[in-house]
Amino acid sequence: MQPFNSAFNVEEKISDESLQLRSVVTHGGQVVLSLVREPLAALKPEDVLIRVEAAPINPSDIGAMLGAADLSLAWTADGAAGPELVAPVPAASLPAMRSSRAASMPVGLEGAGTVVAAGSSQAAQSLMGKTVAAMAGGMYARYRCVAAAECLVLPEGTSAVEAASCFVNPLAALGMVETACREGHTAIVQTAAASNLGQILLRICLADGVPLVNVVRSQQQEELLRAQGARYVCNSSSGDFRDRLVDAIAATGATIVLDPIGGGSGGQILSCMEVAISRRPGQAASRYGSEVLKQLYVYGALDPRPIEIPRDIGAAWAAGGWLLLRYLKVTQPQILDRLKARVAAEVKTTFASHYARGISLKEVISPEVLKVCAHPATGMKFLIEPWKNC
Amino acid sequence: MQPFNSAFNVEEKISDESLQLRSVVTHGGQVVLSLVREPLAALKPEDVLIRVEAAPINPSDIGAMLGAADLSLAWTADGAAGPELVAPVPAASLPAMRSSRAASMPVGLEGAGTVVAAGSSQAAQSLMGKTVAAMAGGMYARYRCVAAAECLVLPEGTSAVEAASCFVNPLAALGMVETACREGHTAIVQTAAASNLGQILLRICLADGVPLVNVVRSQQQEELLRAQGARYVCNSSSGDFRDRLVDAIAATGATIVLDPIGGGSGGQILSCMEVAISRRPGQAASRYGSEVLKQLYVYGALDPRPIEIPRDIGAAWAAGGWLLLRYLKVTQPQILDRLKARVAAEVKTTFASHYARGISLKEVISPEVLKVCAHPATGMKFLIEPWKNC
Repeated sequence: MQPFNSAFNVEEKISDESLQLRSVVTHGGQVVLSLVREPLAALKPEDVLIRVEAAPINPSDIGAMLGAADLSLAWTADGAAGPELVAPVPAASLPAMRSSRAASMPVGLEGAGTVVAAGSSQAAQSLMGKTVAAMAGGMYARYRCVAAAECLVLPEGTSAVEAASCFVNPLAALGMVETACREGHTAIVQTAAASNLGQILLRICLADGVPLVNVVRSQQQEELLRAQGARYVCNSSSGDFRDRLVDAIAATGATIVLDPIGGGSGGQILSCMEVAISRRPGQAASRYGSEVLKQLYVYGALDPRPIEIPRDIGAAWAAGGWLLLRYLKVTQPQILDRLKARVAAEVKTTFASHYARGISLKEVISPEVLKVCAHPATGMKFLIEPWKNC
Repeated sequence: MQPFNSAFNVEEKISDESLQLRSVVTHGGQVVLSLVREPLAALKPEDVLIRVEAAPINPSDIGAMLGAADLSLAWTADGAAGPELVAPVPAASLPAMRSSRAASMPVGLEGAGTVVAAGSSQAAQSLMGKTVAAMAGGMYARYRCVAAAECLVLPEGTSAVEAASCFVNPLAALGMVETACREGHTAIVQTAAASNLGQILLRICLADGVPLVNVVRSQQQEELLRAQGARYVCNSSSGDFRDRLVDAIAATGATIVLDPIGGGSGGQILSCMEVAISRRPGQAASRYGSEVLKQLYVYGALDPRPIEIPRDIGAAWAAGGWLLLRYLKVTQPQILDRLKARVAAEVKTTFASHYARGISLKEVISPEVLKVCAHPATGMKFLIEPWKNC
């Protein structure tokens, strides 16, 4: 954790303005990313002011910042208040992009920092000086005003860097495992298992004793996951991939796939599940396939082609999109509170995230940095430290 | 109904044996269809003996009879007890076919006739002389022994021909509409809407006031459905199909597709739904698409290619197989009883089926007849009358 800043003094003077990263769609059909100075408003009784010290760049943040803009044609312009990143939006994508977002919006879904000011309420006052995480949007900023109830308080001794990624990946991984178990599945297959989220999901399943089959695409990724204790790892680049996947599914009894890829990725695993189920003793096959429900949840679009469901899986199958924001809306508050409390308690272990680099707000406005973020190799996740180089 | 037999006299002598159509997979890798004489066993107290007078040939019956056998290479052989139909099974399909069915099995999922003998129980005795329908399997036979509780009693004045198709298509259509409404959808899109099942589904929705968008593939089919009162019919062979489909979906608010085709059929309708939803006032679009759940149920495989789910429909989508046999297993008995009672009460109206021809048991064992059944044009449904030409 040495490459990252930390340790702010709560007593230090609060600035009267914040610096905020905003994404604007111009009349001319360009996306402009710029740093905007914003005066800090007076706090309402229930609000706290977080000095944001660490905020990760998730794939969904790249989407929010750039939309359909063409990063390969982006350049750095000399804006009125400093450098700006300008990227053209293809004409065909412009109407959809305009209708799906505000012209100008603050970005940064989640982050963590120190509560440096609090409204008059008891709830807000009790957070003064604490390290908290929030998924409030607009977190790529030096200060962010957030309702006290939205803050996740971390145990003492937790740094903002450690707390930066408390929501998106941990809650998605926990939410998907909770969904799988609630729907009656007793073992899981995940694709893109070596991703940051995939590794968190592995640690959850190891801790909870849920058998997990991990699909990766290289020997290196296989070794990475085995070193972390993964028992079932199937490498899609190996010649006997399909046979080994069927074996792993048969050994675990997995009946659900969690897939951030799309295309043909999840469907071929449903096929392997049907083969594995047909091996079960006493499983009466019929022309309509097995009676065991096979579920696919697609939670990303690494492959933008249509999702393919093969027809050799019988009639007992289901597929659907899985989206964290929707899960947070439809799930009972007490379940969410339990999941968040677990993230706070295990933030340094189960939910630890790793970053390739810490960067300043100004560094984000660089085509080179964003290109790396937009096409992340495994492990190349960046962390924004809004107070770096200020 | 003149081309069909009817009117049996209950008083007539019951034969001491039945004639039954069986499908056998031979050691040599062929499917053999033959007529087998079977002695009638003594009835248990709860059983009745149905003299089967009419049994439809459904697509699922073709599957049960032939499996993967190649009908284009079938011939009529001179069996020990009369003619037999012999069709070779491709070697690649043989293991799956052998594991999914008994070597020799009676066929004919559903049918209707007169109760000509009854076991000693009150329930069985009360059915004597009644016209009943059953989905007991082995209905391509002159007599079939069935538990009294499995019989659906038709109102007086109903012929066996009218009662022949009480289960497969009516319960599938009712079950899918019931599923759609229970899951919160208020309007439906169906593909292959001019099929026998599609027309029943249309009449159910007209009777129940459920808005229905019917997708057909010809002008002739469009006119057929409009003549039956269909308000929304979209012809996929017309140039403005997609625009008209979006309009119809927007007008009805349909959020569920019932699709017997597969391939790209249902997915393109989900895309049209997403467009229609984006037109709703106050519908906030986001990068993740609308928040309105779009559901696809696939209940057939007229197109055997993989099912394609496009990625322009956001994250709020779900798809799955829908199978009548599974629905009957998982649905509460009181709901099923209500659906069956409705079929009996409306068997001459909502649930009326139409047949191109009535054929004898012997005529089924003819490659020419089975070829027509296996590739049915709309309306070419056949009815087996086991007592014809005897």
